[in-house]
Amino acid sequence: MLVMNYDVSKLRHFFEARSIAVVGASEKPGTIGRAIMTNLLERFKGRIYPVNIKYDQVFGLKCFKSVLEIPDEVDLAVIAVPAKVVPKVADDCGKKGVKALLVISAGFKEVGPEGAELERRLVEVVRKYGMRMIGPNCLGIYDAHTGLDTIFNPSEKQLKPKPGVIAFISQSGALGAAILDWMGLAGIGMSKFISYGNAADVKEYELIEYLAEDPKTKVITAYIEGVEDGRKLMSAVSKAVRLGKPVVVLKAGKTERGAKAASSHTGALAGAYKIYEAGLKQAGAIIVDDLYELFIALKALSLSKPPKGKGVAIVTNGGGAGVLATDSIELLGLEVANLSRETIDELRKVLPPAASPYNPVDVLGDAPASRYEEALRIVSKDPNVHSILVIALLQAPALDGDELVNTVREFSKSVDKPIVMSFPGGAYAEKYMKIMEEAGIPSFKTVMEAVKAIKYLYEFSVRRAKALTKR
Amino acid sequence: MLVMNYDVSKLRHFFEARSIAVVGASEKPGTIGRAIMTNLLERFKGRIYPVNIKYDQVFGLKCFKSVLEIPDEVDLAVIAVPAKVVPKVADDCGKKGVKALLVISAGFKEVGPEGAELERRLVEVVRKYGMRMIGPNCLGIYDAHTGLDTIFNPSEKQLKPKPGVIAFISQSGALGAAILDWMGLAGIGMSKFISYGNAADVKEYELIEYLAEDPKTKVITAYIEGVEDGRKLMSAVSKAVRLGKPVVVLKAGKTERGAKAASSHTGALAGAYKIYEAGLKQAGAIIVDDLYELFIALKALSLSKPPKGKGVAIVTNGGGAGVLATDSIELLGLEVANLSRETIDELRKVLPPAASPYNPVDVLGDAPASRYEEALRIVSKDPNVHSILVIALLQAPALDGDELVNTVREFSKSVDKPIVMSFPGGAYAEKYMKIMEEAGIPSFKTVMEAVKAIKYLYEFSVRRAKALTKR
Repeated sequence: MLVMNYDVSKLRHFFEARSIAVVGASEKPGTIGRAIMTNLLERFKGRIYPVNIKYDQVFGLKCFKSVLEIPDEVDLAVIAVPAKVVPKVADDCGKKGVKALLVISAGFKEVGPEGAELERRLVEVVRKYGMRMIGPNCLGIYDAHTGLDTIFNPSEKQLKPKPGVIAFISQSGALGAAILDWMGLAGIGMSKFISYGNAADVKEYELIEYLAEDPKTKVITAYIEGVEDGRKLMSAVSKAVRLGKPVVVLKAGKTERGAKAASSHTGALAGAYKIYEAGLKQAGAIIVDDLYELFIALKALSLSKPPKGKGVAIVTNGGGAGVLATDSIELLGLEVANLSRETIDELRKVLPPAASPYNPVDVLGDAPASRYEEALRIVSKDPNVHSILVIALLQAPALDGDELVNTVREFSKSVDKPIVMSFPGGAYAEKYMKIMEEAGIPSFKTVMEAVKAIKYLYEFSVRRAKALTKR
Repeated sequence: MLVMNYDVSKLRHFFEARSIAVVGASEKPGTIGRAIMTNLLERFKGRIYPVNIKYDQVFGLKCFKSVLEIPDEVDLAVIAVPAKVVPKVADDCGKKGVKALLVISAGFKEVGPEGAELERRLVEVVRKYGMRMIGPNCLGIYDAHTGLDTIFNPSEKQLKPKPGVIAFISQSGALGAAILDWMGLAGIGMSKFISYGNAADVKEYELIEYLAEDPKTKVITAYIEGVEDGRKLMSAVSKAVRLGKPVVVLKAGKTERGAKAASSHTGALAGAYKIYEAGLKQAGAIIVDDLYELFIALKALSLSKPPKGKGVAIVTNGGGAGVLATDSIELLGLEVANLSRETIDELRKVLPPAASPYNPVDVLGDAPASRYEEALRIVSKDPNVHSILVIALLQAPALDGDELVNTVREFSKSVDKPIVMSFPGGAYAEKYMKIMEEAGIPSFKTVMEAVKAIKYLYEFSVRRAKALTKR
């Protein structure tokens, strides 16, 4: 068992801040200081103190020349001023007793040796006063629950997710913002988003360790380019997984050429990917190759429970889709469950003669929702079945979308096995896909996506079992 | 060179029919006969003759007791009556001189030995009169250009694509309908959709051969479960590819278990997949694993031209996205183009000092559209660059969506190298993604999808070159 030799308890000052100083606050259109003020005024419930030497008031609030002038305790300072000034501002914060710094400003390590020196001095100040710092060169934090939000992109270009259970940390601000935007559109809920930039003080492994114990977070996801301390990252991942929280990692710089690009991007050592991959997997992480896979994994892991084995039962109203599902299951290393003699006999009793009582269970193109229900009831009792894939080709005249979603929703309450759905098709299908998701059942357009979702769920159950054994 | 020993010229009677008899026509709600009549009356420009022993009139048109009573030539008969009656109807059609039969009716080979015998008798009748037949047990045809449309699913559940250049043949009716529905929603244009069902007479290879010469079709895609004659299928694919038309195949029954499911679904011999895959690839087909991949391939192949090599230039306003693109390109067997000394020097002159003039070319997060334009202009001239991946993180305040799409659209007219775009993000990003697609530039949400698109384009250029050599 690895030992944690750092203290993440202070990270709570970022997320539980009751008072925030915004250094660089402004009303000037197009400025970062304005965007952050606007965000905070809209939703943040704590006290907000604008700081800017140029103004007396910002959005009707008294504006201070320095954090030292604020007549109150300050938990968190958000700093968006030119890089050169940041060490001085940090020193003021230290004197003031500020506990946490979120440094948005760019112009540090990422721009060359001079910036690196500035960053070194900044870290010195931070450590001197025992503060913690996220950044510099980052977008900062979006906490969907508290409204702490420093993501300064224009609101017409940047959606933000509703409150939910997925936490997301990103080394890249721009890519992080794009994913946030996508999650906002997709209706996927989020607990906390943290763009950690140059990671001069707070490292990605500390954030993961903190999120492992965050009651609002059930799934942790990370976009990582370079890692300084692989052992600590593994240890943090392992802790989260043992606590039952999946950790999904999108690692950039997998290939030699990608690693080279990553190192010129962040200046971070991208490292030999194969070693990280093995270590991360051993620690229990789920590794994905791209954003598409990330979304499938997140949807599955945030909504559903892991299956107890790899046997999948398929219930479909289209034979072709059943064949594709069978292929997908086999290709991804799961198993098309062998139904017991008893199950097959029972299915035969309730299904029409032309239907297939074997797996894939084909309830036929003329099946109404009630026929799905009978099939689901029977296959779910089979001990070889660990999860159920329900495929609905809603174009079929006989299958009513409302009836089907009600049936599956009610049925899902009575079983302990995960159910994942696939709704291949257009607008009508998408409508019901979304209804099922709101009911907590992961639903996808293609059959392969649904099977991938089951694969990620199964992967998590295997990884978690291993992580617990090693404890 | 394989020789064609069958005659597909008669297939034109399905698609160029000037007069259609609808046997089983009806006004009764919920019937297939009503749905087909409604479809045809809405858009089909030729003559329509309802046939039904029960009615004198259907939708105001004179209804005939038998096709033999129709006082005019009939090119095509669409048959939607109970299976038992179909051979008799077909015989009437033969006597009448009907040239083509589209048999929607189910209840043939797919239901067992009795049905198989009925199907054998039906084929005998068809051959006796020298007719051609698509089906039985199928959805039939949707011709987006002529309005011939026998897809009888309720219109509120089933979207249909706009006219376009993609032809799609499907052994599975239900899955075919779902894909049609999806293409309708996605705004992907289609030339002809053919659900060929039991393929008792017209085979998939004949349809492919016909489509190879169809001037409305530029890309052919096929969902295939079982194949009777592999050699003829390869030969038809090869012909299409040599004529410059990509053939994209989604083959179900790839795995042993999937093949078993396929054979119990259609009764067709699914065959050893590995052999088919090798043969199809040799003939020039592009094989995809699932609907998601199919859509990427279709979008790329229908909109763009194949690149002359595997060197890809990346132009991005986000370093992280550039790293992911680099990884994706390497993982998929393409090449991150090595830019020439000259190109790098030219880029260095126009880009800010912090930008990367190497590939991926990082124009930085503060880049306006004009900076993209300069980078594109320079990299496109590099002989090592065969295609260009443009990544736009539109969340960035400095990058205006309108300006970017205008810039790339104009630029694309001046270069002979394919351009593919990626717009990671939410609603704002999707809006511009669609605008680019309408301008004929394949655009995708994730970086990996865009790279896959380039991979399919490159694959087609390689396959085509091989197919032409073997001629």
